[in-house]
Amino acid sequence: MKQADSYVKAFEIGEPLDGGCIGEVIESNNDRFKVGDQVLGNLGWREYWNSDGKEVHKLDPELAPIQAYLGALGMTGMTAWVGLRRIADLRSGSTVFVSAASGAVGSMVCQIAKADGCKVIGSAGTDEKIQWLKKKAGLDAVINYKTTGNLSKELGKLAPNGIDVYFDNVGSDHLEAAIDHMNDFGCIVCCGMISTYNATEPASAPRNLFKVIGKRLRLQGFIVRDHMAEREEFVRDVSTLIRDGKIAWEDTITEGLENAPDAFIGLFKGDNLGKALVRISNENQ
Amino acid sequence: MKQADSYVKAFEIGEPLDGGCIGEVIESNNDRFKVGDQVLGNLGWREYWNSDGKEVHKLDPELAPIQAYLGALGMTGMTAWVGLRRIADLRSGSTVFVSAASGAVGSMVCQIAKADGCKVIGSAGTDEKIQWLKKKAGLDAVINYKTTGNLSKELGKLAPNGIDVYFDNVGSDHLEAAIDHMNDFGCIVCCGMISTYNATEPASAPRNLFKVIGKRLRLQGFIVRDHMAEREEFVRDVSTLIRDGKIAWEDTITEGLENAPDAFIGLFKGDNLGKALVRISNENQ
Repeated sequence: MKQADSYVKAFEIGEPLDGGCIGEVIESNNDRFKVGDQVLGNLGWREYWNSDGKEVHKLDPELAPIQAYLGALGMTGMTAWVGLRRIADLRSGSTVFVSAASGAVGSMVCQIAKADGCKVIGSAGTDEKIQWLKKKAGLDAVINYKTTGNLSKELGKLAPNGIDVYFDNVGSDHLEAAIDHMNDFGCIVCCGMISTYNATEPASAPRNLFKVIGKRLRLQGFIVRDHMAEREEFVRDVSTLIRDGKIAWEDTITEGLENAPDAFIGLFKGDNLGKALVRISNENQ
Repeated sequence: MKQADSYVKAFEIGEPLDGGCIGEVIESNNDRFKVGDQVLGNLGWREYWNSDGKEVHKLDPELAPIQAYLGALGMTGMTAWVGLRRIADLRSGSTVFVSAASGAVGSMVCQIAKADGCKVIGSAGTDEKIQWLKKKAGLDAVINYKTTGNLSKELGKLAPNGIDVYFDNVGSDHLEAAIDHMNDFGCIVCCGMISTYNATEPASAPRNLFKVIGKRLRLQGFIVRDHMAEREEFVRDVSTLIRDGKIAWEDTITEGLENAPDAFIGLFKGDNLGKALVRISNENQ
Protein backbone atom coordinates (compact mmCIF):
# COMPACT_ATOMS: atom_id res chain seq x y z
CA MET A 1 0.00 0.00 0.00
CA LYS A 2 1.36 3.40 -0.90
CA GLN A 3 1.65 6.41 1.35
CA ALA A 4 -0.38 9.54 0.84
CA ASP A 5 2.12 11.53 -1.20
CA SER A 6 2.62 8.57 -3.52
CA TYR A 7 -1.11 8.46 -4.20
CA VAL A 8 -1.03 12.12 -5.06
CA LYS A 9 1.87 11.57 -7.41
CA ALA A 10 0.12 8.66 -9.14
CA PHE A 11 -2.71 10.93 -10.17
CA GLU A 12 -0.80 13.76 -11.78
CA ILE A 13 -2.23 14.51 -15.21
CA GLY A 14 -0.43 12.63 -17.95
CA GLU A 15 0.91 9.92 -15.62
CA PRO A 16 -0.24 6.36 -16.28
CA LEU A 17 -2.66 4.83 -13.76
CA ASP A 18 -0.60 2.17 -12.02
CA GLY A 19 -2.39 -0.90 -10.80
CA GLY A 20 -2.58 -4.65 -10.98
CA CYS A 21 -4.51 -5.82 -14.04
CA ILE A 22 -5.56 -9.20 -15.42
CA GLY A 23 -6.30 -10.02 -19.04
CA GLU A 24 -6.06 -12.56 -21.83
CA VAL A 25 -3.23 -12.97 -24.34
CA ILE A 26 -4.58 -12.14 -27.84
CA GLU A 27 -1.30 -12.37 -29.77
CA SER A 28 2.11 -13.72 -28.74
CA ASN A 29 5.66 -14.03 -30.07
CA ASN A 30 6.87 -15.22 -26.67
CA ASP A 31 7.30 -18.97 -26.01
CA ARG A 32 6.13 -18.53 -22.40
CA PHE A 33 2.67 -17.30 -23.40
CA LYS A 34 0.14 -18.53 -25.91
CA VAL A 35 -3.07 -16.97 -27.18
CA GLY A 36 -5.84 -17.51 -24.62
CA ASP A 37 -3.54 -17.57 -21.57
CA GLN A 38 -4.79 -15.53 -18.67
CA VAL A 39 -2.13 -13.26 -17.23
CA LEU A 40 -1.47 -10.77 -14.43
CA GLY A 41 0.65 -7.66 -14.79
CA ASN A 42 1.21 -4.31 -13.19
CA LEU A 43 1.31 -2.23 -16.36
CA GLY A 44 -1.67 -0.16 -15.37
CA TRP A 45 -5.34 0.05 -16.11
CA ARG A 46 -5.80 -0.10 -19.87
CA GLU A 47 -7.69 -2.13 -22.43
CA TYR A 48 -4.65 -3.51 -24.29
CA TRP A 49 -1.01 -4.03 -23.37
CA ASN A 50 2.14 -4.58 -25.31
CA SER A 51 4.49 -6.52 -23.06
CA ASP A 52 7.98 -8.01 -23.34
CA GLY A 53 6.86 -10.69 -20.87
CA LYS A 54 8.75 -9.25 -17.90
CA GLU A 55 6.79 -9.07 -14.67
CA VAL A 56 3.83 -10.78 -16.32
CA HIS A 57 2.57 -13.92 -14.58
CA LYS A 58 0.52 -16.70 -16.15
CA LEU A 59 -2.52 -17.53 -14.03
CA ASP A 60 -4.07 -20.86 -13.15
CA PRO A 61 -7.86 -20.47 -13.58
CA GLU A 62 -8.37 -23.95 -12.08
CA LEU A 63 -7.23 -22.79 -8.67
CA ALA A 64 -9.57 -19.83 -8.27
CA PRO A 65 -11.61 -17.39 -10.36
CA ILE A 66 -9.03 -15.29 -12.14
CA GLN A 67 -10.04 -12.08 -10.39
CA ALA A 68 -8.70 -13.72 -7.19
CA TYR A 69 -5.28 -12.98 -8.63
CA LEU A 70 -6.05 -9.30 -8.02
CA GLY A 71 -7.12 -10.03 -4.43
CA ALA A 72 -6.52 -13.13 -2.31
CA LEU A 73 -3.77 -14.37 -4.64
CA GLY A 74 -2.71 -10.88 -5.75
CA MET A 75 -0.93 -7.93 -4.23
CA THR A 76 -3.48 -7.45 -1.46
CA GLY A 77 -3.29 -11.10 -0.37
CA MET A 78 0.47 -10.94 -0.58
CA THR A 79 0.49 -7.74 1.51
CA ALA A 80 -1.36 -9.62 4.26
CA TRP A 81 0.98 -12.59 3.96
CA VAL A 82 4.18 -10.51 4.01
CA GLY A 83 2.94 -8.50 6.99
CA LEU A 84 2.20 -11.62 9.03
CA ARG A 85 5.00 -13.88 7.80
CA ARG A 86 7.86 -11.44 7.33
CA ILE A 87 7.14 -8.44 9.61
CA ALA A 88 5.19 -9.85 12.56
CA ASP A 89 6.54 -12.68 14.60
CA LEU A 90 3.19 -14.48 14.45
CA ARG A 91 2.79 -17.55 16.62
CA SER A 92 -0.08 -19.96 17.02
CA GLY A 93 -2.23 -18.95 19.97
CA SER A 94 -1.44 -15.24 19.62
CA THR A 95 -4.16 -12.62 19.78
CA VAL A 96 -4.28 -10.53 16.60
CA PHE A 97 -6.18 -7.27 16.09
CA VAL A 98 -6.90 -6.17 12.52
CA SER A 99 -8.33 -2.81 11.50
CA ALA A 100 -10.27 -2.41 8.24
CA ALA A 101 -10.74 -6.13 8.76
CA SER A 102 -13.18 -6.65 5.89
CA GLY A 103 -10.96 -4.88 3.37
CA ALA A 104 -8.98 -6.67 0.70
CA VAL A 105 -5.85 -6.81 2.87
CA GLY A 106 -7.56 -7.03 6.26
CA SER A 107 -9.81 -9.96 5.35
CA MET A 108 -6.76 -11.95 4.22
CA VAL A 109 -4.84 -11.05 7.38
CA CYS A 110 -7.74 -12.28 9.49
CA GLN A 111 -8.05 -15.60 7.69
CA ILE A 112 -4.32 -16.35 7.49
CA ALA A 113 -4.08 -15.65 11.23
CA LYS A 114 -7.13 -17.85 11.95
CA ALA A 115 -5.58 -20.65 9.87
CA ASP A 116 -2.46 -20.24 12.04
CA GLY A 117 -4.47 -20.89 15.19
CA CYS A 118 -4.70 -17.31 16.42
CA LYS A 119 -7.53 -15.48 18.17
CA VAL A 120 -8.55 -12.72 15.75
CA ILE A 121 -10.42 -9.51 16.57
CA GLY A 122 -11.34 -7.14 13.75
CA SER A 123 -12.86 -3.73 13.30
CA ALA A 124 -15.24 -2.70 10.53
CA GLY A 125 -17.86 -0.02 9.93
CA THR A 126 -21.09 -1.68 8.78
CA ASP A 127 -23.28 -4.54 9.99
CA GLU A 128 -22.93 -6.26 6.60
CA LYS A 129 -19.14 -6.31 6.95
CA ILE A 130 -19.32 -7.47 10.54
CA GLN A 131 -21.65 -10.34 9.66
CA TRP A 132 -19.37 -11.37 6.79
CA LEU A 133 -16.33 -11.34 9.08
CA LYS A 134 -18.03 -13.42 11.73
CA LYS A 135 -19.82 -15.90 9.46
CA LYS A 136 -17.53 -16.22 6.43
CA ALA A 137 -14.11 -15.32 7.75
CA GLY A 138 -14.60 -16.91 11.18
CA LEU A 139 -13.37 -14.04 13.35
CA ASP A 140 -13.65 -14.39 17.11
CA ALA A 141 -15.00 -10.86 17.57
CA VAL A 142 -15.60 -7.71 15.52
CA ILE A 143 -15.90 -4.12 16.73
CA ASN A 144 -18.11 -1.66 14.86
CA TYR A 145 -15.78 1.34 15.06
CA LYS A 146 -18.48 3.70 13.85
CA THR A 147 -20.96 2.91 16.63
CA THR A 148 -18.74 1.96 19.56
CA GLY A 149 -18.56 4.68 22.17
CA ASN A 150 -15.01 3.82 23.17
CA LEU A 151 -12.84 1.80 20.81
CA SER A 152 -10.05 1.22 23.33
CA LYS A 153 -12.40 0.10 26.09
CA GLU A 154 -14.24 -2.31 23.80
CA LEU A 155 -10.96 -3.73 22.52
CA GLY A 156 -9.82 -4.24 26.11
CA LYS A 157 -12.97 -6.21 26.89
CA LEU A 158 -12.56 -8.42 23.82
CA ALA A 159 -8.84 -9.02 24.46
CA PRO A 160 -8.58 -9.36 28.24
CA ASN A 161 -5.16 -11.02 27.88
CA GLY A 162 -3.85 -8.31 25.54
CA ILE A 163 -2.89 -8.17 21.88
CA ASP A 164 0.28 -9.71 20.49
CA VAL A 165 0.07 -8.47 16.91
CA TYR A 166 -1.81 -5.45 15.61
CA PHE A 167 -2.11 -5.25 11.82
CA ASP A 168 -2.71 -1.55 11.20
CA ASN A 169 -4.55 -0.45 8.07
CA VAL A 170 -6.06 2.65 9.65
CA GLY A 171 -3.77 4.56 12.06
CA SER A 172 -5.00 7.27 14.45
CA ASP A 173 -7.63 6.12 16.98
CA HIS A 174 -7.27 2.45 16.02
CA LEU A 175 -3.52 2.62 16.53
CA GLU A 176 -3.99 4.37 19.86
CA ALA A 177 -6.48 1.74 21.06
CA ALA A 178 -4.15 -1.06 19.98
CA ILE A 179 -1.15 0.47 21.80
CA ASP A 180 -3.29 0.65 24.96
CA HIS A 181 -3.81 -3.11 24.88
CA MET A 182 -0.61 -4.44 23.31
CA ASN A 183 1.25 -7.05 25.30
CA ASP A 184 4.93 -6.53 26.13
CA PHE A 185 7.21 -7.26 23.16
CA GLY A 186 4.24 -7.14 20.77
CA CYS A 187 4.48 -6.13 17.12
CA ILE A 188 2.49 -3.51 15.23
CA VAL A 189 2.57 -4.14 11.49
CA CYS A 190 2.23 -0.73 9.82
CA CYS A 191 0.54 -1.46 6.51
CA GLY A 192 -1.77 1.51 5.99
CA MET A 193 -3.05 4.56 7.84
CA ILE A 194 -6.03 5.36 5.64
CA SER A 195 -7.60 7.56 8.32
CA THR A 196 -4.78 10.08 7.83
CA TYR A 197 -4.52 10.18 4.03
CA ASN A 198 -7.39 12.55 3.40
CA ALA A 199 -7.41 14.28 6.78
CA THR A 200 -7.66 18.05 6.55
CA GLU A 201 -6.18 18.42 10.04
CA PRO A 202 -2.88 16.74 11.00
CA ALA A 203 -3.48 13.41 12.73
CA SER A 204 -3.75 13.90 16.48
CA ALA A 205 -3.54 10.26 17.59
CA PRO A 206 -1.87 8.12 18.83
CA ARG A 207 -1.39 10.16 21.98
CA ASN A 208 0.03 7.19 23.87
CA LEU A 209 3.07 6.49 21.73
CA PHE A 210 5.32 6.65 24.83
CA LYS A 211 3.95 3.23 25.78
CA VAL A 212 6.07 1.79 22.97
CA ILE A 213 8.99 2.05 25.41
CA GLY A 214 7.59 0.46 28.56
CA LYS A 215 5.92 -2.29 26.53
CA ARG A 216 9.01 -2.79 24.33
CA LEU A 217 6.86 -2.67 21.21
CA ARG A 218 8.07 -2.84 17.65
CA LEU A 219 6.23 -0.81 14.99
CA GLN A 220 7.38 -1.67 11.51
CA GLY A 221 6.36 -0.35 8.13
CA PHE A 222 6.66 -2.33 4.92
CA ILE A 223 5.76 -2.26 1.23
CA VAL A 224 4.84 -5.49 -0.51
CA ARG A 225 6.87 -4.65 -3.63
CA ASP A 226 10.10 -5.09 -1.64
CA HIS A 227 9.17 -8.75 -1.31
CA MET A 228 8.38 -9.71 -4.91
CA ALA A 229 11.11 -12.35 -4.88
CA GLU A 230 8.91 -14.25 -2.42
CA ARG A 231 5.82 -14.26 -4.66
CA GLU A 232 6.02 -17.95 -5.54
CA GLU A 233 6.21 -18.96 -1.89
CA PHE A 234 3.19 -16.76 -1.18
CA VAL A 235 1.11 -18.22 -4.03
CA ARG A 236 2.00 -21.76 -2.90
CA ASP A 237 1.17 -21.02 0.73
CA VAL A 238 -2.13 -19.19 0.14
CA SER A 239 -3.21 -21.59 -2.66
CA THR A 240 -3.03 -24.35 -0.09
CA LEU A 241 -5.25 -22.38 2.26
CA ILE A 242 -7.73 -21.72 -0.56
CA ARG A 243 -7.80 -25.42 -1.53
CA ASP A 244 -8.39 -26.30 2.12
CA GLY A 245 -11.41 -23.99 2.17
CA LYS A 246 -9.86 -21.62 4.71
CA ILE A 247 -10.10 -18.43 2.66
CA ALA A 248 -13.31 -16.64 1.69
CA TRP A 249 -13.34 -13.41 -0.25
CA GLU A 250 -15.63 -10.88 -1.82
CA ASP A 251 -15.15 -8.45 -4.68
CA THR A 252 -16.83 -5.12 -5.21
CA ILE A 253 -16.75 -4.63 -8.97
CA THR A 254 -17.16 -1.23 -10.62
CA GLU A 255 -18.01 -1.40 -14.33
CA GLY A 256 -15.94 0.63 -16.78
CA LEU A 257 -12.61 2.43 -16.57
CA GLU A 258 -14.48 5.74 -16.67
CA ASN A 259 -15.89 4.91 -13.22
CA ALA A 260 -12.50 4.10 -11.65
CA PRO A 261 -12.35 7.45 -9.78
CA ASP A 262 -15.61 6.63 -7.99
CA ALA A 263 -14.26 3.19 -7.06
CA PHE A 264 -11.12 4.84 -5.69
CA ILE A 265 -13.00 7.44 -3.67
CA GLY A 266 -15.17 4.63 -2.29
CA LEU A 267 -12.08 3.26 -0.52
CA PHE A 268 -12.05 6.29 1.74
CA LYS A 269 -15.76 6.15 2.47
CA GLY A 270 -15.80 2.48 3.45
CA ASP A 271 -18.17 1.59 0.58
CA ASN A 272 -16.52 -1.69 -0.41
CA LEU A 273 -16.65 -5.16 0.99
CA GLY A 274 -13.46 -6.97 0.07
CA LYS A 275 -11.35 -6.14 -2.94
CA ALA A 276 -12.36 -3.13 -5.05
CA LEU A 277 -12.07 -4.06 -8.74
CA VAL A 278 -12.75 -2.16 -11.93
CA ARG A 279 -13.90 -4.13 -14.99
CA ILE A 280 -12.28 -2.50 -18.01
CA SER A 281 -13.60 -4.72 -20.76
CA ASN A 282 -16.22 -7.45 -21.08
CA GLU A 283 -15.01 -8.58 -24.49
CA ASN A 284 -13.53 -11.90 -23.48
CA GLN A 285 -15.95 -12.96 -20.81
CA MET B 1 14.20 4.52 31.33
CA LYS B 2 10.73 4.06 32.75
CA GLN B 3 7.50 5.26 31.25
CA ALA B 4 5.39 7.96 32.79
CA ASP B 5 3.04 5.84 34.86
CA SER B 6 5.97 3.92 36.32
CA TYR B 7 7.49 7.17 37.54
CA VAL B 8 4.26 8.04 39.21
CA LYS B 9 4.11 4.66 40.87
CA ALA B 10 7.69 4.93 42.11
CA PHE B 11 6.80 8.01 44.10
CA GLU B 12 3.82 6.75 45.99
CA ILE B 13 4.20 7.44 49.69
CA GLY B 14 5.77 4.56 51.54
CA GLU B 15 7.40 3.07 48.42
CA PRO B 16 11.20 2.88 48.40
CA LEU B 17 13.04 5.21 46.03
CA ASP B 18 14.49 2.87 43.40
CA GLY B 19 17.74 3.89 41.79
CA GLY B 20 21.29 2.85 41.10
CA CYS B 21 23.56 3.55 44.07
CA ILE B 22 27.29 3.17 44.77
CA GLY B 23 28.90 2.72 48.16
CA GLU B 24 31.60 1.04 50.19
CA VAL B 25 31.40 -2.29 52.00
CA ILE B 26 31.70 -1.65 55.76
CA GLU B 27 31.08 -5.20 56.98
CA SER B 28 30.95 -8.50 55.09
CA ASN B 29 30.23 -12.19 55.66
CA ASN B 30 30.32 -12.86 51.91
CA ASP B 31 33.51 -14.22 50.31
CA ARG B 32 32.92 -12.15 47.18
CA PHE B 33 33.17 -8.84 49.04
CA LYS B 34 35.62 -7.48 51.59
CA VAL B 35 35.51 -4.35 53.72
CA GLY B 36 36.56 -1.34 51.65
CA ASP B 37 35.31 -2.75 48.32
CA GLN B 38 33.38 -0.26 46.25
CA VAL B 39 30.11 -1.68 44.95
CA LEU B 40 27.13 -0.85 42.76
CA GLY B 41 23.58 -1.93 43.48
CA ASN B 42 20.04 -1.06 42.66
CA LEU B 43 18.61 -1.26 46.16
CA GLY B 44 17.56 2.36 46.19
CA TRP B 45 18.76 5.64 47.57
CA ARG B 46 19.69 5.10 51.22
CA GLU B 47 22.68 5.59 53.51
CA TYR B 48 23.19 1.92 54.43
CA TRP B 49 22.24 -1.36 52.78
CA ASN B 50 21.95 -4.92 53.97
CA SER B 51 22.56 -7.14 50.97
CA ASP B 52 22.76 -10.87 50.28
CA GLY B 53 25.20 -10.08 47.49
CA LYS B 54 22.71 -10.66 44.67
CA GLU B 55 22.69 -8.01 41.97
CA VAL B 56 25.59 -6.21 43.66
CA HIS B 57 28.63 -5.58 41.46
CA LYS B 58 32.19 -4.91 42.63
CA LEU B 59 33.66 -1.84 40.94
CA ASP B 60 37.13 -1.22 39.57
CA PRO B 61 38.15 2.30 40.71
CA GLU B 62 41.31 2.09 38.56
CA LEU B 63 39.28 2.21 35.38
CA ALA B 64 37.28 5.35 36.07
CA PRO B 65 36.09 7.48 38.99
CA ILE B 66 33.55 5.30 40.76
CA GLN B 67 30.64 7.64 40.04
CA ALA B 68 31.16 6.67 36.36
CA TYR B 69 29.53 3.38 37.33
CA LEU B 70 26.31 5.37 37.75
CA GLY B 71 26.76 7.00 34.33
CA ALA B 72 29.08 5.99 31.47
CA LEU B 73 29.64 2.52 32.94
CA GLY B 74 26.25 2.34 34.67
CA MET B 75 22.65 1.94 33.59
CA THR B 76 22.63 5.11 31.48
CA GLY B 77 25.75 4.08 29.56
CA MET B 78 24.34 0.61 29.16
CA THR B 79 21.03 2.05 27.94
CA ALA B 80 22.92 3.83 25.17
CA TRP B 81 24.91 0.70 24.35
CA VAL B 82 21.88 -1.61 24.26
CA GLY B 83 19.95 0.87 22.10
CA LEU B 84 22.72 1.07 19.52
CA ARG B 85 24.07 -2.49 19.68
CA ARG B 86 20.90 -4.52 20.24
CA ILE B 87 18.00 -2.40 18.90
CA ALA B 88 19.48 -0.32 16.07
CA ASP B 89 21.27 -1.94 13.21
CA LEU B 90 24.12 0.57 13.50
CA ARG B 91 26.72 0.53 10.75
CA SER B 92 29.88 2.53 10.30
CA GLY B 93 29.19 5.51 8.06
CA SER B 94 25.55 5.84 9.14
CA THR B 95 24.04 9.17 10.07
CA VAL B 96 22.68 9.17 13.63
CA PHE B 97 20.42 11.80 15.19
CA VAL B 98 20.25 11.93 19.01
CA SER B 99 17.80 14.05 21.02
CA ALA B 100 18.67 15.18 24.56
CA ALA B 101 22.17 14.61 23.26
CA SER B 102 24.00 16.03 26.28
CA GLY B 103 22.02 13.91 28.75
CA ALA B 104 23.43 10.90 30.53
CA VAL B 105 22.11 8.49 27.90
CA GLY B 106 22.34 10.83 24.90
CA SER B 107 25.98 11.78 25.45
CA MET B 108 26.94 8.10 25.54
CA VAL B 109 24.91 7.35 22.41
CA CYS B 110 26.69 10.17 20.58
CA GLN B 111 30.16 9.01 21.57
CA ILE B 112 29.62 5.29 20.95
CA ALA B 113 28.24 6.16 17.50
CA LYS B 114 31.20 8.49 16.80
CA ALA B 115 33.61 5.72 17.86
CA ASP B 116 31.80 3.47 15.37
CA GLY B 117 32.56 5.89 12.54
CA CYS B 118 29.12 7.47 12.24
CA LYS B 119 28.10 11.03 11.49
CA VAL B 120 26.32 12.25 14.62
CA ILE B 121 23.87 15.14 14.92
CA GLY B 122 22.48 16.05 18.34
CA SER B 123 19.93 18.38 19.83
CA ALA B 124 20.27 20.23 23.12
CA GLY B 125 18.79 23.30 24.76
CA THR B 126 21.64 25.53 26.03
CA ASP B 127 24.82 26.98 24.55
CA GLU B 128 26.86 25.34 27.31
CA LYS B 129 25.54 21.89 26.35
CA ILE B 130 26.06 22.56 22.66
CA GLN B 131 29.67 23.64 23.20
CA TRP B 132 30.31 20.55 25.32
CA LEU B 133 28.84 18.28 22.65
CA LYS B 134 30.90 19.85 19.88
CA LYS B 135 34.19 20.23 21.76
CA LYS B 136 34.23 17.31 24.21
CA ALA B 137 31.99 14.71 22.60
CA GLY B 138 33.05 15.50 19.03
CA LEU B 139 29.60 15.74 17.43
CA ASP B 140 29.38 16.78 13.79
CA ALA B 141 26.52 19.20 14.42
CA VAL B 142 24.16 20.22 17.21
CA ILE B 143 20.75 21.88 16.96
CA ASN B 144 19.56 24.22 19.72
CA TYR B 145 15.96 23.02 19.84
CA LYS B 146 14.91 25.95 22.01
CA THR B 147 16.03 28.66 19.59
CA THR B 148 15.65 27.01 16.18
CA GLY B 149 12.63 28.28 14.31
CA ASN B 150 12.03 24.96 12.56
CA LEU B 151 13.55 21.79 13.96
CA SER B 152 12.70 19.63 10.94
CA LYS B 153 14.08 22.13 8.44
CA GLU B 154 17.33 22.55 10.37
CA LEU B 155 17.72 18.80 10.70
CA GLY B 156 17.20 18.44 6.95
CA LYS B 157 19.97 20.95 6.27
CA LEU B 158 22.39 19.17 8.60
CA ALA B 159 21.54 15.70 7.24
CA PRO B 160 21.14 16.25 3.49
CA ASN B 161 21.55 12.51 2.88
CA GLY B 162 18.99 11.56 5.53
CA ILE B 163 19.15 9.84 8.91
CA ASP B 164 19.71 6.11 9.33
CA VAL B 165 19.24 5.85 13.09
CA TYR B 166 17.31 8.19 15.37
CA PHE B 167 17.86 7.62 19.08
CA ASP B 168 14.76 9.14 20.66
CA ASN B 169 14.91 10.43 24.23
CA VAL B 170 12.31 13.16 23.70
CA GLY B 171 9.35 12.18 21.48
CA SER B 172 6.87 14.69 20.01
CA ASP B 173 8.41 17.38 17.78
CA HIS B 174 11.83 15.70 17.77
CA LEU B 175 10.30 12.40 16.68
CA GLU B 176 8.29 14.16 14.00
CA ALA B 177 11.37 15.95 12.65
CA ALA B 178 13.34 12.70 12.62
CA ILE B 179 10.58 10.82 10.75
CA ASP B 180 10.62 13.60 8.12
CA HIS B 181 14.28 12.92 7.39
CA MET B 182 14.68 9.19 8.03
CA ASN B 183 16.11 7.17 5.19
CA ASP B 184 14.23 4.12 3.91
CA PHE B 185 14.62 1.10 6.21
CA GLY B 186 15.94 3.31 9.03
CA CYS B 187 15.52 2.53 12.71
CA ILE B 188 14.10 4.70 15.47
CA VAL B 189 15.29 3.55 18.89
CA CYS B 190 12.54 4.51 21.36
CA CYS B 191 14.35 5.06 24.63
CA GLY B 192 12.49 7.96 26.22
CA MET B 193 9.81 10.51 25.40
CA ILE B 194 10.48 12.99 28.18
CA SER B 195 8.53 15.73 26.39
CA THR B 196 5.33 13.76 27.01
CA TYR B 197 5.78 12.65 30.62
CA ASN B 198 4.70 15.90 32.25
CA ALA B 199 2.52 17.20 29.44
CA THR B 200 -0.84 18.53 30.59
CA GLU B 201 -2.27 18.09 27.08
CA PRO B 202 -2.01 14.78 25.21
CA ALA B 203 0.98 14.75 22.86
CA SER B 204 0.00 16.04 19.43
CA ALA B 205 3.09 14.99 17.49
CA PRO B 206 4.29 13.09 15.53
CA ARG B 207 1.67 14.01 12.90
CA ASN B 208 3.63 12.25 10.15
CA LEU B 209 3.59 8.71 11.52
CA PHE B 210 2.13 7.43 8.21
CA LYS B 211 5.62 7.89 6.71
CA VAL B 212 6.69 4.82 8.72
CA ILE B 213 5.03 2.78 5.95
CA GLY B 214 6.45 4.36 2.80
CA LYS B 215 9.91 4.57 4.36
CA ARG B 216 9.68 1.03 5.83
CA LEU B 217 10.82 2.34 9.22
CA ARG B 218 11.16 0.31 12.38
CA LEU B 219 10.37 1.99 15.71
CA GLN B 220 11.35 -0.15 18.66
CA GLY B 221 11.07 0.42 22.37
CA PHE B 222 13.32 -1.22 24.93
CA ILE B 223 14.18 -1.25 28.61
CA VAL B 224 17.77 -1.77 29.67
CA ARG B 225 16.82 -4.13 32.51
CA ASP B 226 15.77 -6.77 29.97
CA HIS B 227 19.43 -6.94 28.95
CA MET B 228 21.20 -7.36 32.29
CA ALA B 229 22.69 -10.67 31.19
CA GLU B 230 24.77 -8.62 28.75
CA ARG B 231 26.23 -6.29 31.39
CA GLU B 232 29.72 -7.80 31.33
CA GLU B 233 29.96 -7.44 27.57
CA PHE B 234 28.84 -3.82 27.90
CA VAL B 235 31.41 -3.01 30.62
CA ARG B 236 34.17 -4.63 28.56
CA ASP B 237 33.16 -2.78 25.39
CA VAL B 238 32.72 0.67 26.94
CA SER B 239 35.76 0.30 29.24
CA THR B 240 37.83 -0.10 26.09
CA LEU B 241 36.38 3.10 24.67
CA ILE B 242 37.11 4.92 27.94
CA ARG B 243 40.72 3.65 27.99
CA ASP B 244 41.11 4.78 24.37
CA GLY B 245 40.01 8.28 25.40
CA LYS B 246 36.86 8.15 23.28
CA ILE B 247 34.35 8.86 26.04
CA ALA B 248 33.96 12.14 27.93
CA TRP B 249 31.31 12.69 30.56
CA GLU B 250 30.04 15.19 33.06
CA ASP B 251 28.14 14.79 36.30
CA THR B 252 25.74 17.22 37.87
CA ILE B 253 25.90 16.39 41.59
CA THR B 254 23.18 17.43 44.02
CA GLU B 255 24.26 17.27 47.68
CA GLY B 256 22.05 15.41 50.16
CA LEU B 257 19.22 12.93 49.82
CA GLU B 258 16.84 15.65 51.01
CA ASN B 259 17.53 17.52 47.76
CA ALA B 260 16.82 14.52 45.51
CA PRO B 261 13.37 15.83 44.51
CA ASP B 262 14.98 19.03 43.14
CA ALA B 263 17.51 16.94 41.20
CA PHE B 264 14.65 14.87 39.78
CA ILE B 265 12.56 17.87 38.78
CA GLY B 266 15.68 19.35 37.15
CA LEU B 267 15.58 16.50 34.62
CA PHE B 268 12.37 17.92 33.17
CA LYS B 269 13.67 21.50 33.06
CA GLY B 270 16.90 20.65 31.26
CA ASP B 271 19.05 21.88 34.16
CA ASN B 272 21.65 19.13 34.06
CA LEU B 273 24.68 18.54 31.93
CA GLY B 274 25.38 14.82 31.82
CA LYS B 275 24.40 12.41 34.56
CA ALA B 276 22.32 13.74 37.46
CA LEU B 277 23.69 12.31 40.71
CA VAL B 278 22.71 12.77 44.33
CA ARG B 279 25.45 12.50 46.96
CA ILE B 280 23.85 10.79 49.97
CA SER B 281 26.83 10.67 52.31
CA ASN B 282 30.33 12.18 52.38
CA GLU B 283 31.51 9.89 55.16
CA ASN B 284 33.86 7.74 53.14
CA GLN B 285 35.26 10.29 50.77
